[in-house]
Amino acid sequence: MLGLMQDRPLTLPHVFHRAEQYFARKTVVTAQTDGETSMTIGEWAGRVRRLATVLDTLGVSADGRVGTFCWNTGRHLELYLAAPCTGRVLHTLNIRLFPEQLVYIVDHAEDEVVFVDRSLIPVIAPLADKMGTVRRFVVIDDGADAAIPEGWLDYEELLAAAEPFGGTFVVEDENTAAAMCYTSGTTGNPKGVVYSHRSAVLHSLITLTADAFALSERDVVLPVVPMFHANSWGLPYGCLLAGSDLVMPGPNMTPQAIASLLARHRVTVTGGVPTIWMGMLPMVGDHDLSHLRMIVCGGSAVPRSLSESYRTTVGIPLTQAWGMTETSPIATMSTPRSHHDALTEDERADIRARQGQPVPFVDMRLVDPDSGEVQPWDDAATGEIQAAGPWIAKEYYRGEGGGAQYTEDGWLRTGDVGTGDRYGFVRLVDRTKDLIKSGGEWIGSVELENEIMAHPKVAEAAVIAIPSEKWVERPLACVVVKPGETLTPEEVIEFLTPRVAKWWLPDAVEFIDEVPKTSVGKFSKKTLREKFGGYQVAGPASHEPA
Amino acid sequence: MLGLMQDRPLTLPHVFHRAEQYFARKTVVTAQTDGETSMTIGEWAGRVRRLATVLDTLGVSADGRVGTFCWNTGRHLELYLAAPCTGRVLHTLNIRLFPEQLVYIVDHAEDEVVFVDRSLIPVIAPLADKMGTVRRFVVIDDGADAAIPEGWLDYEELLAAAEPFGGTFVVEDENTAAAMCYTSGTTGNPKGVVYSHRSAVLHSLITLTADAFALSERDVVLPVVPMFHANSWGLPYGCLLAGSDLVMPGPNMTPQAIASLLARHRVTVTGGVPTIWMGMLPMVGDHDLSHLRMIVCGGSAVPRSLSESYRTTVGIPLTQAWGMTETSPIATMSTPRSHHDALTEDERADIRARQGQPVPFVDMRLVDPDSGEVQPWDDAATGEIQAAGPWIAKEYYRGEGGGAQYTEDGWLRTGDVGTGDRYGFVRLVDRTKDLIKSGGEWIGSVELENEIMAHPKVAEAAVIAIPSEKWVERPLACVVVKPGETLTPEEVIEFLTPRVAKWWLPDAVEFIDEVPKTSVGKFSKKTLREKFGGYQVAGPASHEPA
Repeated sequence: MLGLMQDRPLTLPHVFHRAEQYFARKTVVTAQTDGETSMTIGEWAGRVRRLATVLDTLGVSADGRVGTFCWNTGRHLELYLAAPCTGRVLHTLNIRLFPEQLVYIVDHAEDEVVFVDRSLIPVIAPLADKMGTVRRFVVIDDGADAAIPEGWLDYEELLAAAEPFGGTFVVEDENTAAAMCYTSGTTGNPKGVVYSHRSAVLHSLITLTADAFALSERDVVLPVVPMFHANSWGLPYGCLLAGSDLVMPGPNMTPQAIASLLARHRVTVTGGVPTIWMGMLPMVGDHDLSHLRMIVCGGSAVPRSLSESYRTTVGIPLTQAWGMTETSPIATMSTPRSHHDALTEDERADIRARQGQPVPFVDMRLVDPDSGEVQPWDDAATGEIQAAGPWIAKEYYRGEGGGAQYTEDGWLRTGDVGTGDRYGFVRLVDRTKDLIKSGGEWIGSVELENEIMAHPKVAEAAVIAIPSEKWVERPLACVVVKPGETLTPEEVIEFLTPRVAKWWLPDAVEFIDEVPKTSVGKFSKKTLREKFGGYQVAGPASHEPA
Repeated sequence: MLGLMQDRPLTLPHVFHRAEQYFARKTVVTAQTDGETSMTIGEWAGRVRRLATVLDTLGVSADGRVGTFCWNTGRHLELYLAAPCTGRVLHTLNIRLFPEQLVYIVDHAEDEVVFVDRSLIPVIAPLADKMGTVRRFVVIDDGADAAIPEGWLDYEELLAAAEPFGGTFVVEDENTAAAMCYTSGTTGNPKGVVYSHRSAVLHSLITLTADAFALSERDVVLPVVPMFHANSWGLPYGCLLAGSDLVMPGPNMTPQAIASLLARHRVTVTGGVPTIWMGMLPMVGDHDLSHLRMIVCGGSAVPRSLSESYRTTVGIPLTQAWGMTETSPIATMSTPRSHHDALTEDERADIRARQGQPVPFVDMRLVDPDSGEVQPWDDAATGEIQAAGPWIAKEYYRGEGGGAQYTEDGWLRTGDVGTGDRYGFVRLVDRTKDLIKSGGEWIGSVELENEIMAHPKVAEAAVIAIPSEKWVERPLACVVVKPGETLTPEEVIEFLTPRVAKWWLPDAVEFIDEVPKTSVGKFSKKTLREKFGGYQVAGPASHEPA
């Protein structure tokens, strides 16, 4: 027997029309190279309506891919709605990709038009000739003085000449593609994740729930996390749905600029990767950040000490959110719960350093990488985290390269290894491919790195496996020392000795200038493994496994 | 082009398994006639698993209707999940229905089994023989001493004898019926609204959003609104999804009992109809209600003065929510927004007396009852409120009796007439069928009633149309005077004169003992119209329309 409820699809046009009708007086501020611009959501909505007909005029096909090569701006937000509300697919291009990856992605997605912030022209223009599917490049003038290539169109001229779309946007099927984003995997070509209207809308709704971001009409939100990075964690769509004000940081992503925006616009919610908050920490005392109620941190594991520094200086710790491009991205949130109230502040900091509890409608299980058996949530057993849910990918665009990342019963293999407690609080210990198997037992490289990074003289550390005749694999610690400090391998080992099992102690410590990063700022252990391929431990290993 | 997200249905099994896994330590307290019981969600989940197999043992068909004739209790909550998670349809029976309606509904829905709280046996047992589709009655012993009819089964005995269902509940299609509830319309037979898993789940998610109820794991929720009244406004499913503690009031619904529960269990969120809060007002000073953060009020228009009394005594006003059985029921919420902050407390009270802004995914329009034209949201133009959305009914069960309540393009005619401002705040002025058309102009009977009820000596007032040769219809005010007070028709008219347009002044005032109510406590104007059918105004109408 079927329910007798209306067959109303969950689509982004609802988000647009809701914002346009009820939140017209709310604002989107954008910081530009030459000052700030501000528009109301009413004005913004009018521009989205013009942009909708511009896409027709440019001849973008009914479900054509619309590339964006842009910073976080109000105009990027226009593209965020105009493309999917007219049935097109928003394709956010990562401006930090390597040139050959960028060309590959544009070609693979068959982008028909690419919108480019003027300040980014120097990055993409040299590659334009290789982008065979792109019929038109459109420049969004952000105040930079980069030369505009011959034949590239001007965004504002197109909008000024366009008739606004006059009706209600309709997307009939909620499973229609709304947006896509490529993951810059550490192996092989980037893979395309294709979000549907349904997934985008449900994910947005989660950002409004009390134990997630709790976005409300009263919030002023500054998404530091790029709009080309997994939909900026759902903040743009979430804000439109809730009616929050938005502050967009534009091209100037320096910590100083972000801190100034947070203070000046009395921002209540912001989100970004640890690197941003690390960089901003020294200057938080110079700004009034008392309006902030939540600093979301994700993209890579949140250092406990960083979160604690924010708690003691700004007054609120970092709130960890975890996910990946394939999970839209919000999968877990580390909001402390009522049973944590009885803990000490120090114990709560440990909880906040966890990745947190799955948000509603995300199912999760821990699977042993060897046996394939589902592990208990006992805070001890580790397993690969597998996820399922309505905003989690089932395959990659054109089915390429990622079949191995999905299980036979349709769950996503996240590639992360972790534990979960009985309250659902997940704690990551490693990436499956970074796990070090020593004498038949797993060593968590991320856990080991966290312990090394707790040393006051250590800026960064990455741990990789090196071959061992006796134990198959053993850990090598690659350590970046803080500027002006000195450190010896012996000091590192001495520091670790009371903190980890004896057989976890690295066989060697190498000092490096920095940990190589991927285009989205994650540790590239692949690069380190290449660098230290065939590494030989000098002298007998003093810390053999038990 | 389709998105490539997992095809995971939005179903109640997710809500169940999430609560069971992550919130096992949370509690459901139930007040009974002989004290209180408390169980953890872990214990509750184990009982749901047993109940699931009990339904099999009782021979309930795969999509059979499972009737409940129960108060708000933890055991009713077991039925709330066990029925839909096994593919059956929960049918909550209104314990206050007239006997013939009850028999009609059970028969119409083809309930196969009915679960009855022992204290309610005297109400339903005399009708049992007429309920031909019901194979079994099951008694839930709530401590009352009502005699148990021959052949009726005992709930606890069935559970004790049952094996718990051991796996994961699966409902493949999110459009499968999950629950049904009949509307006690004021004309014709009751009509069945059939909720789907999708609608129940999406509606639950809305109760978690910051600008709606903002249900979180930290809340302790007491649903006063009956679980047989439009799913208790989504509170039970919402609490399970959020992980909130629940306090169930059981059979003792006296204001004294509710106030005591609110204080004793440090309840943070509660919800009920105005009558409850009216009754509780005299005793709020005797209880510590400082933990309450939200008192949701709905079911009928919230008197402004009542809300203000709560603001000045308890410290928080009533938060109005509006909807109907056909809308699951949450359609609008009157949470004040940032642009209201600049208003005076008095002006904000006016805002709170409005029905509020549509929640996400509810679309609304105002349609002129005469011309059928869509009206602007200018806070002045009135129209019938029509609603659309994924948790709004598209038709009644078996298509009966309600075709006229749905438009050709699939929207629900709510039967309410109102205005909306540019922020989406709806204000009801009347029911379409209660509107009084005088000399070609509409008079809003509800607006007129509200003005009369502002008189300090008036307890209740209802305004109905009486025939007029000259003006077609004119208003008659039916007024209930507060105990111990006296009032004349002239005093009522004098009080109204500065408050409404001259032609709105009633042609006559009749004093009655009480306003007749429907089985869900709403004004039954139908009864009043019957009573005053053919009413003749004594003497010349002194207040003729202009």
